[in-house]
Amino acid sequence: MAPLPISAGIEDVPQDAAAPRHHALAERFFAVRAATEALAAPLSAEDQTVQSMPDASPAKWHRAHTSWFFETFVLQPHQPGYRCFDPDFSYLFNSYYEAVGARHQRNARGMITRPGIDEIAAYRAHVDAAMARLLAESRPDVAEIVELGLQHEQQHQELLLTDIKHAFSANPLLPAYLPPPLTDAAARAPELEWIELPGGRHTIGHQAQGFCFDNETPAHDVLLADFRIAARPVSVGEYLEFIEDDGYRQASLWLSDGWALVNSQAWKAPLYWEERDGVWSSYTLHGLLPLNSAEPVCHVSLYEAAAFAAWAGRRLPTEFEWEVAARRFDGATARLSLARPHPRPLANGFRQDVWEWTGSAYLPYPGYRPAPGAVGEYNGKFMINQMVLRGGSCATPPGHARPTYRNFFPAAARWQFSGFRLAQDV
Amino acid sequence: MAPLPISAGIEDVPQDAAAPRHHALAERFFAVRAATEALAAPLSAEDQTVQSMPDASPAKWHRAHTSWFFETFVLQPHQPGYRCFDPDFSYLFNSYYEAVGARHQRNARGMITRPGIDEIAAYRAHVDAAMARLLAESRPDVAEIVELGLQHEQQHQELLLTDIKHAFSANPLLPAYLPPPLTDAAARAPELEWIELPGGRHTIGHQAQGFCFDNETPAHDVLLADFRIAARPVSVGEYLEFIEDDGYRQASLWLSDGWALVNSQAWKAPLYWEERDGVWSSYTLHGLLPLNSAEPVCHVSLYEAAAFAAWAGRRLPTEFEWEVAARRFDGATARLSLARPHPRPLANGFRQDVWEWTGSAYLPYPGYRPAPGAVGEYNGKFMINQMVLRGGSCATPPGHARPTYRNFFPAAARWQFSGFRLAQDV
Amino acid sequence: MAPLPISAGIEDVPQDAAAPRHHALAERFFAVRAATEALAAPLSAEDQTVQSMPDASPAKWHRAHTSWFFETFVLQPHQPGYRCFDPDFSYLFNSYYEAVGARHQRNARGMITRPGIDEIAAYRAHVDAAMARLLAESRPDVAEIVELGLQHEQQHQELLLTDIKHAFSANPLLPAYLPPPLTDAAARAPELEWIELPGGRHTIGHQAQGFCFDNETPAHDVLLADFRIAARPVSVGEYLEFIEDDGYRQASLWLSDGWALVNSQAWKAPLYWEERDGVWSSYTLHGLLPLNSAEPVCHVSLYEAAAFAAWAGRRLPTEFEWEVAARRFDGATARLSLARPHPRPLANGFRQDVWEWTGSAYLPYPGYRPAPGAVGEYNGKFMINQMVLRGGSCATPPGHARPTYRNFFPAAARWQFSGFRLAQDV
Amino acid sequence: MAPLPISAGIEDVPQDAAAPRHHALAERFFAVRAATEALAAPLSAEDQTVQSMPDASPAKWHRAHTSWFFETFVLQPHQPGYRCFDPDFSYLFNSYYEAVGARHQRNARGMITRPGIDEIAAYRAHVDAAMARLLAESRPDVAEIVELGLQHEQQHQELLLTDIKHAFSANPLLPAYLPPPLTDAAARAPELEWIELPGGRHTIGHQAQGFCFDNETPAHDVLLADFRIAARPVSVGEYLEFIEDDGYRQASLWLSDGWALVNSQAWKAPLYWEERDGVWSSYTLHGLLPLNSAEPVCHVSLYEAAAFAAWAGRRLPTEFEWEVAARRFDGATARLSLARPHPRPLANGFRQDVWEWTGSAYLPYPGYRPAPGAVGEYNGKFMINQMVLRGGSCATPPGHARPTYRNFFPAAARWQFSGFRLAQDV
Repeated sequence: MAPLPISAGIEDVPQDAAAPRHHALAERFFAVRAATEALAAPLSAEDQTVQSMPDASPAKWHRAHTSWFFETFVLQPHQPGYRCFDPDFSYLFNSYYEAVGARHQRNARGMITRPGIDEIAAYRAHVDAAMARLLAESRPDVAEIVELGLQHEQQHQELLLTDIKHAFSANPLLPAYLPPPLTDAAARAPELEWIELPGGRHTIGHQAQGFCFDNETPAHDVLLADFRIAARPVSVGEYLEFIEDDGYRQASLWLSDGWALVNSQAWKAPLYWEERDGVWSSYTLHGLLPLNSAEPVCHVSLYEAAAFAAWAGRRLPTEFEWEVAARRFDGATARLSLARPHPRPLANGFRQDVWEWTGSAYLPYPGYRPAPGAVGEYNGKFMINQMVLRGGSCATPPGHARPTYRNFFPAAARWQFSGFRLAQDV
Repeated sequence: MAPLPISAGIEDVPQDAAAPRHHALAERFFAVRAATEALAAPLSAEDQTVQSMPDASPAKWHRAHTSWFFETFVLQPHQPGYRCFDPDFSYLFNSYYEAVGARHQRNARGMITRPGIDEIAAYRAHVDAAMARLLAESRPDVAEIVELGLQHEQQHQELLLTDIKHAFSANPLLPAYLPPPLTDAAARAPELEWIELPGGRHTIGHQAQGFCFDNETPAHDVLLADFRIAARPVSVGEYLEFIEDDGYRQASLWLSDGWALVNSQAWKAPLYWEERDGVWSSYTLHGLLPLNSAEPVCHVSLYEAAAFAAWAGRRLPTEFEWEVAARRFDGATARLSLARPHPRPLANGFRQDVWEWTGSAYLPYPGYRPAPGAVGEYNGKFMINQMVLRGGSCATPPGHARPTYRNFFPAAARWQFSGFRLAQDV
Repeated sequence: MAPLPISAGIEDVPQDAAAPRHHALAERFFAVRAATEALAAPLSAEDQTVQSMPDASPAKWHRAHTSWFFETFVLQPHQPGYRCFDPDFSYLFNSYYEAVGARHQRNARGMITRPGIDEIAAYRAHVDAAMARLLAESRPDVAEIVELGLQHEQQHQELLLTDIKHAFSANPLLPAYLPPPLTDAAARAPELEWIELPGGRHTIGHQAQGFCFDNETPAHDVLLADFRIAARPVSVGEYLEFIEDDGYRQASLWLSDGWALVNSQAWKAPLYWEERDGVWSSYTLHGLLPLNSAEPVCHVSLYEAAAFAAWAGRRLPTEFEWEVAARRFDGATARLSLARPHPRPLANGFRQDVWEWTGSAYLPYPGYRPAPGAVGEYNGKFMINQMVLRGGSCATPPGHARPTYRNFFPAAARWQFSGFRLAQDV
Repeated sequence: MAPLPISAGIEDVPQDAAAPRHHALAERFFAVRAATEALAAPLSAEDQTVQSMPDASPAKWHRAHTSWFFETFVLQPHQPGYRCFDPDFSYLFNSYYEAVGARHQRNARGMITRPGIDEIAAYRAHVDAAMARLLAESRPDVAEIVELGLQHEQQHQELLLTDIKHAFSANPLLPAYLPPPLTDAAARAPELEWIELPGGRHTIGHQAQGFCFDNETPAHDVLLADFRIAARPVSVGEYLEFIEDDGYRQASLWLSDGWALVNSQAWKAPLYWEERDGVWSSYTLHGLLPLNSAEPVCHVSLYEAAAFAAWAGRRLPTEFEWEVAARRFDGATARLSLARPHPRPLANGFRQDVWEWTGSAYLPYPGYRPAPGAVGEYNGKFMINQMVLRGGSCATPPGHARPTYRNFFPAAARWQFSGFRLAQDV
């Protein structure tokens, strides 16, 4: 196996160089807020209202909840005389902050027909106007929490897309969110190559300037053994081989909880795939499309990723191996494109097309401390029963792709844009 | 007990005298269709989309399903060259007709964000235009099925109201469908009086001219013992006494299945009632209103009706006793008023403010035969595990109140406008 | 159709002529108590402990509960100085009498490993000894409640058999309760004949001397139309034709709730039937046996009975029609035989081999009043969501077969020895 | 804080020095097998049959399953001419080995009334006799799999105790497995002291001679920061303070999944605790006993352990910290005593009274490989959604306590003898 030529490793440079400057913060604020509205624009009032499962939320709710975040954590504590848009909204649009008071039960978000989308738009405008006044004051005391609010809103931009994809897939008409893109039917995934990296002591976690979430800290050293990691994620074509080799029917390949799901949920392929008369297609935000072998496999659970790896005689990388490799490699740039919320054909590198499952449980780094107050509920209380995904997806906004970024979901989750790459011991 | 003066008994006169005349049928067709649209008019696109429980349906679905009925059972078989509006709609908007083909699962009707309300309006217009052409031909062969379609649509008008009430009640903001009416706070329910009626052989079921459902036939004789029946339904005030006397905590008053629900669902009062600091109010289509003691109690299950009756030392009437009494009494006129989908203060008689639970199971009359074909699924296959309600409610359209009309719901159902009156042996 | 020769009609003669005489009551007491023990004798301690579903109870529990009944309703109120065997037992072995105090939850009866079967035997002996003393006093004030206790114990004898059959069927080894009987492989069901009976006014309910349950009263008249009723229940052979004609795959034959069960539970045949390589067998208390076409079909739900009737172009009789016919016919003698808890090959008449589903809901007769006190919970509170079965089964003890006897189960129940016969309008 | 005097650290010495010698293996075989029977001896046939939840198994099943293990993995492949006791038993008593064929569903193990305990005893005797013949041959090729079978049986000995405790607790009579022990009411937990240990590179995992499970390998180095770990587990008395300080009512202390369980399951204290009139007691295998403040808290979930730690301003140790500390400390000797399956009053050290939750997810060590074949299903396929517990409990047999031993359960599990100790950063 020839070592892969590696261009200059990317570094933990601040990915949003604008952060420290207040004028820039205001600009960034409005850019992020506008991006949310652009994502919701193709959706009708009805589309924005439904909730297709307890884990998903209505698009309208995402639009309101992100505004509630600024109202609750920025405007109310920091803007004297701020007039709350509607006191009932705190109950409706608090997601999980116990410290902020009672809240609407998560699985009933789809019942909120009122306020309607016009009132939500007015809510957003009200919050934006107050934020504009606040940001014009160039107050350094709010910069950090405003930045957190923007990062938070960007996370919800990705969820808005994954949630509406799930909702549309529950409609027998399989509506398209956007028209189908021009695709390169001739695209082929590059041959699988391996990057070999030396073990030893590596520093993990965020240590550069710029924003990061608390779960990326503190930076600390870990010991790794020498390892090899695939130069690209697993492709649709490779995954089809696994299916055709009865991958979903061999218990020995599966983690026990995964095998139980394969049987109880009758899993036969990734989420959104369907086979008719021997031809596979997949529901996408562009409607039902034929499978493209050159794309990374997507919408798989950790269980499917691990079963594939067992079938291939490999394993998943740990989140530490992934981070070490990604730092050495070019290309970790986020790529949410309104025109194509769908993974591109594969190329080598650590590109953001699918989140990549790792073999690491989502746990606190040594010395981790959540922030005090309600904002401290952001990450810490979810550090159980979840696995780490690294990288970023076709639905990830700019600024959410860095080598230290830790995404996390339960091993059974499939509605995110989740794929994986392989690793092996040396 | 003084016998109640009874005015001329109502008879089974045809309640829609227009039925046989085709011109009149067309008029009636458009009146009924317009009434559905009027009911939906106060609802936003979002309001019309949600489904708050498997038993309820979205308002938009009701609008489409009733159109699908005309398309499927009138236009497609009887109008040569009829162009189906959209072939996918049959899958989406078939309710339960197994003979007509596959259909969308009932509990996922709330996922149909598309077609949107504008497309549903276009669907209705398309069907209405085709029906106008058909009805202009004065074809006697379609009169019967058109009439069934209209009766069917009127039933869905009532469901549209009960379902949106349930959906709104699941929104913490408790939105109002209509502004609150002027109410007569001084209204008082008349003292409870009893009508005594002789037993013997009575004819039950529909035997006059005019439309009826198959479940009202064939007319047949039953033997009754002498009985007394209350001159009006039980009032809110009387029901409050039952609650305050610990009616919901005395197992001995309850049917076994009802007692299990009282405990597992923590029932403490009728659906939509809530008590704060000793004050009771009730969610209505006009928003949250204080309880009015003079109104009939409403939104109770058969279990609650039977427990109240046990507490009062009475019983529920059978559906036969109810029918015999209602025929003798004036006032069985339907009263759906767009301005007030809420029961009026009580007066003596058999007025349509709340459906009245009876002690009779919903079973076929002797000699009953369902119609052949898909339309035969209308009533017969539901003749199990349901109890009969008689009368009509504030949400019942004109033409759906006659002494022989048999409504039916499971004993646990509470989201209909369901109350009850008492009876006793002589 | 030739009318069937009918021998002398059976009458409502007291079926237990011994009831009024105290000496006889004691004799009867010990005979019934001994019969329970004989039924439990083939069961190991383990067999007697398990509960295979919430509706079933462990054999040990049946033995204890029937003793608790005598302790609670006879000895404690009527025998001064009676020493309770163990005060904890009231909590464990009360079935559903709310008025008697708290009780163990029904679906956890299988957790009662202690008291063990030896202690249950001691409990029974303790109660029997006290009862012997009481019965020796020839006190007329207890005769009625003792008789109720014996009837109650006999009902539990049948349940003991149906419940252990269900429990054994959940064991992959399919153990036999008794060795297989000699069977007449050449037996054939008689050709289906019809009994035609005149309608008019018929008296229904118990009016003779001798014991009956409160739900058989008061006797009252009903009006019937002329009808025909089959001279025997439907046979296994006939039911196989229904299966082979895709009876379980035609929605149009089924009540709506039944069709939902066919699909969600994957019903393809009666309970306990299984097909391997085209050969049908059935689990019985004698182990797995080949189907015998000459036997009455058994272990069907009301839904299956009604679907078969629809397929055959017939209907189920009402409980009133059944009662009228059974009175006219010979043979209504109970037949629990320890040697053969399995239906015999069919013969014409109203024999007790399978309970027969009727088309009647289980509701109170006009004028019905439950007894005061805890015993009043015996029947009345179950008069909802159940259908009436008439006749008696191969597991029914003597004295529980009379033309007026009303058995009742939910329409979905299949673990009783339940079959059915057809009826039709004239 | 004074450093705790630490006596000579324990080493990874082979805990069963007899393993290599065949004569000794036979001796050990019969000792382990006899220990299982001794544990079952106080249990009646009924006790041994019930299954109180899907995660637990009947005692009889444990006795049979451990025999099936020897039959399947030792006798059938290695003893020519071995006669299988009963071919049906493989279906009944296979736990989760997919590679060995179909098996009885886990949650229906409580339905196996037959084979009875006498037949299970005969099964054990049959296997033991065949094993005696095999072991007499001193065949080195079977030593390893026999040893695994013995380790496996010892694990089931612990489960037998935890499962019967759970089953007995579901009986309202709360029966005792053993008579209550003499307890030292005056015992007091030692003051909480902290052991400070240096970080750096530490070797983790099994590297000595003697048996270990595959999940303890391969040994590998990890980097740790300096840390402090409590000298003893948290006491009942300390946990009561947490309860009295509303620990179960403060959302901010809990992991999100844990808080959901606190509310949905109404957790107010550890499993088996109950409070009446302000007095706390706990169900134990000796019956209901008053709480003893000096004992380690037991039967808590990971969620409760983590919430307590948050309340105390500490954290749980990682499994690596725990292992490093335990190696330095004396006393890691297993202590299953038939006379007292209940934790002793606390003393400093790493004694086996309660398993100790750690903050580490149960994942493979770097380079981990499961064994080939069915035995490879032993550990690897469970490496998801579980947390590691270290140490050993009052129910752990000798030979199952070593510093590298990894026990694992889902974070919600409470029916094991599970407690915890605190740690903190330096």
